Amino acid sequence: MTEPAKRGLFISFEGPEGCGKTTQIRLLHERLVGAAHRVLITREPGGTAIGDEIRQLLQFSPAGRAMKPETELLLFTASRAQLVREVIAPALDSGVTVIADRFLDSTTVYQGVARKIDNGAVALINGFAVSSLLPDITFILDVDVDLSQKRVLGRPKAAGFPDRMEQQPRAFYERVRAGYLSLAASDARMRLVDASKPVAEVEARIWTHLHGFFDGNGL
Amino acid sequence: MTEPAKRGLFISFEGPEGCGKTTQIRLLHERLVGAAHRVLITREPGGTAIGDEIRQLLQFSPAGRAMKPETELLLFTASRAQLVREVIAPALDSGVTVIADRFLDSTTVYQGVARKIDNGAVALINGFAVSSLLPDITFILDVDVDLSQKRVLGRPKAAGFPDRMEQQPRAFYERVRAGYLSLAASDARMRLVDASKPVAEVEARIWTHLHGFFDGNGL
Repeated sequence: MTEPAKRGLFISFEGPEGCGKTTQIRLLHERLVGAAHRVLITREPGGTAIGDEIRQLLQFSPAGRAMKPETELLLFTASRAQLVREVIAPALDSGVTVIADRFLDSTTVYQGVARKIDNGAVALINGFAVSSLLPDITFILDVDVDLSQKRVLGRPKAAGFPDRMEQQPRAFYERVRAGYLSLAASDARMRLVDASKPVAEVEARIWTHLHGFFDGNGL
Repeated sequence: MTEPAKRGLFISFEGPEGCGKTTQIRLLHERLVGAAHRVLITREPGGTAIGDEIRQLLQFSPAGRAMKPETELLLFTASRAQLVREVIAPALDSGVTVIADRFLDSTTVYQGVARKIDNGAVALINGFAVSSLLPDITFILDVDVDLSQKRVLGRPKAAGFPDRMEQQPRAFYERVRAGYLSLAASDARMRLVDASKPVAEVEARIWTHLHGFFDGNGL
């Protein structure tokens, strides 16, 4: 008999486009894998066969132009419901550390605050979709709208760029930032990080919040 | 100035596959159109560009084989959220009679009762998706599982037949029937109709419940 695996740590990264999530997730992944940890990165929407079809519909389908906010919320949460049950929960159960590039807080902020859907309804549907599985720790990478847009515009242009979520009026992004700042103060799992700082500084800041979880495990 | 249009009547048809919904909807449509009424038939999932993509994913995508019940519920309700706001509500507002081939009661029965998702959660998500727009009258066409399956097997085989929702174990269809019978007793808008009877008899029975809404309007 082997001992059951210790449950993996569930870390999510949140913030507006251009906040540096992808870079920080890559750096954290390298650090953990370098210390022989098993790590899985998930990205939303998508990450399952069903989720990838939903991602296509949400971000790139011509049909998406007519999409109502409630439809959008239900599609994002459908993708997440599948991801939680098919990928995240089994990985955590088998001892893998999961790093989520966006999770339910994105719905709270983007569909709830920014698209102005009632936050009680958002909370209920979010809870249903994730079946009460919450991250152990959530990093909210904060940058102001000017810096966010500057970074997004400086990116190499991918196919289909910009997607539907990247073509909103400025007031939308102002509400996204305010939503994240409000969320950061609302729950003990949140860690607000000033992501306007240099990459190495942001990385160090994130690690001060995480190293305790991995002490004595090769890091 | 013309008077604002009288709001259209919203009728939904529910029941298991093979209950005769499609036939009865066609007959009702012919009757109303023959009397110069404006009538729109909707079918779920689908009926909008977004909904048609969701329908494809729900019914025919290979990705659907791994679909979790919660994902399924959120996709059906996403399709309906779009249909209500893009099609049904504007039609009713302009005075058109809408006949829905399935509406939110299908989710209550198929995902709630048959897939055993908590009925409180189903009710909340259903209410969110339709934004409190309920049918004025709902026909539940009741047939037992044997007759339902006999009728379905007797159909011409369409491309992609049978779809994912038509490949469940018998106990699933028993729960669907029981769910509809329970629902029929629960709400004043429900009309339970014995759909094992000949088509003309079912049609006459449906019309006894409807003619009052159209009296003096050419019928």
